[in-house]
Amino acid sequence: MVVFGAIEAGGTKFVCAVGTGPADLRARTEFPTTLPQETIARAVGWLKEQGQHAPLAAVGIGSFGPIDVNTASPWYGFITTTPKAGWRNTDLVGPIRRALGVRVAFDTDVNAAALGEQTWGAAKGLSTFVYITVGTGIGGGGLVEGRLMHGALHPEMGHMRIAHDWRADPFPGLCPFHGDCWEGLASGPAIAARWGRQPEELPPDHPAWPLEARYLALGVANLVCALSPQRIILGGGVMRQAGLLPLIRQMTLELLNGYIQVEAIVQHIDQYIVPPRLGDNAGVLGAMALAIGAHRRAAAPGGRLGDLL
Amino acid sequence: MVVFGAIEAGGTKFVCAVGTGPADLRARTEFPTTLPQETIARAVGWLKEQGQHAPLAAVGIGSFGPIDVNTASPWYGFITTTPKAGWRNTDLVGPIRRALGVRVAFDTDVNAAALGEQTWGAAKGLSTFVYITVGTGIGGGGLVEGRLMHGALHPEMGHMRIAHDWRADPFPGLCPFHGDCWEGLASGPAIAARWGRQPEELPPDHPAWPLEARYLALGVANLVCALSPQRIILGGGVMRQAGLLPLIRQMTLELLNGYIQVEAIVQHIDQYIVPPRLGDNAGVLGAMALAIGAHRRAAAPGGRLGDLL
Repeated sequence: MVVFGAIEAGGTKFVCAVGTGPADLRARTEFPTTLPQETIARAVGWLKEQGQHAPLAAVGIGSFGPIDVNTASPWYGFITTTPKAGWRNTDLVGPIRRALGVRVAFDTDVNAAALGEQTWGAAKGLSTFVYITVGTGIGGGGLVEGRLMHGALHPEMGHMRIAHDWRADPFPGLCPFHGDCWEGLASGPAIAARWGRQPEELPPDHPAWPLEARYLALGVANLVCALSPQRIILGGGVMRQAGLLPLIRQMTLELLNGYIQVEAIVQHIDQYIVPPRLGDNAGVLGAMALAIGAHRRAAAPGGRLGDLL
Repeated sequence: MVVFGAIEAGGTKFVCAVGTGPADLRARTEFPTTLPQETIARAVGWLKEQGQHAPLAAVGIGSFGPIDVNTASPWYGFITTTPKAGWRNTDLVGPIRRALGVRVAFDTDVNAAALGEQTWGAAKGLSTFVYITVGTGIGGGGLVEGRLMHGALHPEMGHMRIAHDWRADPFPGLCPFHGDCWEGLASGPAIAARWGRQPEELPPDHPAWPLEARYLALGVANLVCALSPQRIILGGGVMRQAGLLPLIRQMTLELLNGYIQVEAIVQHIDQYIVPPRLGDNAGVLGAMALAIGAHRRAAAPGGRLGDLL
């Protein structure tokens, strides 16, 4: 039986794993994201070691971004314009493929997580849905009619502008590019900067949470209008705050105000806006799903990912 | 040679045509949208008459909405929660299919227009792009990785919330559901209500236009972040104002502020945000493209629309 390698390349930490899915996660490790050369060498070293037990058929990488996922581009496999120190224009796929000598699948961390949730988690059987993570930043990915979203680059959902009532919230936003975009207003660091305390230190009845829910609902409602997803999965560290998800559901319904008469939204909002089901392993299992998909596509060219996984 | 029927079902007028494409548009007619029974009968009567010259292989309908495009739904083919008087819960596909006895393809007016532009117009060769119309309302559709966007229902892009600076623009918006959503702030009727004059009566140097460009750019930039389209096509009556499109391009670049480093956007904005190429026939030709697609899919089941058209 074949085994797959997976790398969740995050801005804070790298998570690596080998296996064939959540029920067969043979090994897992994580370490902090330091400088590229050191971090990549560590991931490669660990995967090589694991590969001695059972050869890896393919490796999947779900990466923080922006990244270049256009296979025809000279920068395919690179992390591109990231503000993260030392990581701008870093070739991630090249050195890993050369060192391990296997097929490498590459996508955004959020597209990978979306694929993982579709394969084993909260989006089973769905063809059009969105996966959002709210943490150090806000990122979003997903599938539309069964295809991972790419287009000109890949979605950068966290950088949508949302309605910002300056009277109610004079905080100017933290995004170095856009100030008060979605991420600039509602990421974990934005909460910390606005209230002077880390999100996890703010009690459940703090006014931070209704405001946060309002901002997250504004982004979610916009994605409902732009994409018509069958479900929206909300993950990431900020979503660990109990009580936030029910507030977001309620405010999203209020914002949509009955215009979009879809039973899945209007009648079943609790199953429409949901947490990820793969928990802390969503990212690395998503990367594994990427690897499995690439391996099977290579075995059956022309096949669709959805048919094969 | 086979011939196709097409209906652009608009809230103001119906446009019908028969032919095989823009170079072979054999007949075309238009008439005002009155009550459903009368309007549908007129479309059916005209298509029946045309079918006597050359039998119709299929008919495509691109309709105002919201509509039900889920073929498994009991309301498939219906116009559903429209505020348009008399048209709520109207079966459009049923009576047309029964009267004409042919295969009927059905989608939103904007998805149809997007397909028409991909087949013969401004989106040739693209797999991920958006078509927006700015007129009586704001509507948007498109394709993602070669598939028409549907999901839970279909996109309702005009109902995204955008940043509304109440100090600069105290106009509360016109949308009966959302007030100051994108359509509520930037549709033709919103311009008319805000300034007390019809858009076409406002001179090019009127402050209405920079504000309109700002609102349209806010929506366009959000769609770039949400969907990563390879191109955005902006049509509809409001876009006839000369000078509006260049302003929107410039403001979209300012809003994105270099974050999304895609050459197609940063270097070639003039080819990134473009007018439709099929002009006034975009809608009805799009409906024809739907009919052609349905006909060919029926001939080659399992084939993809993009392979077949």
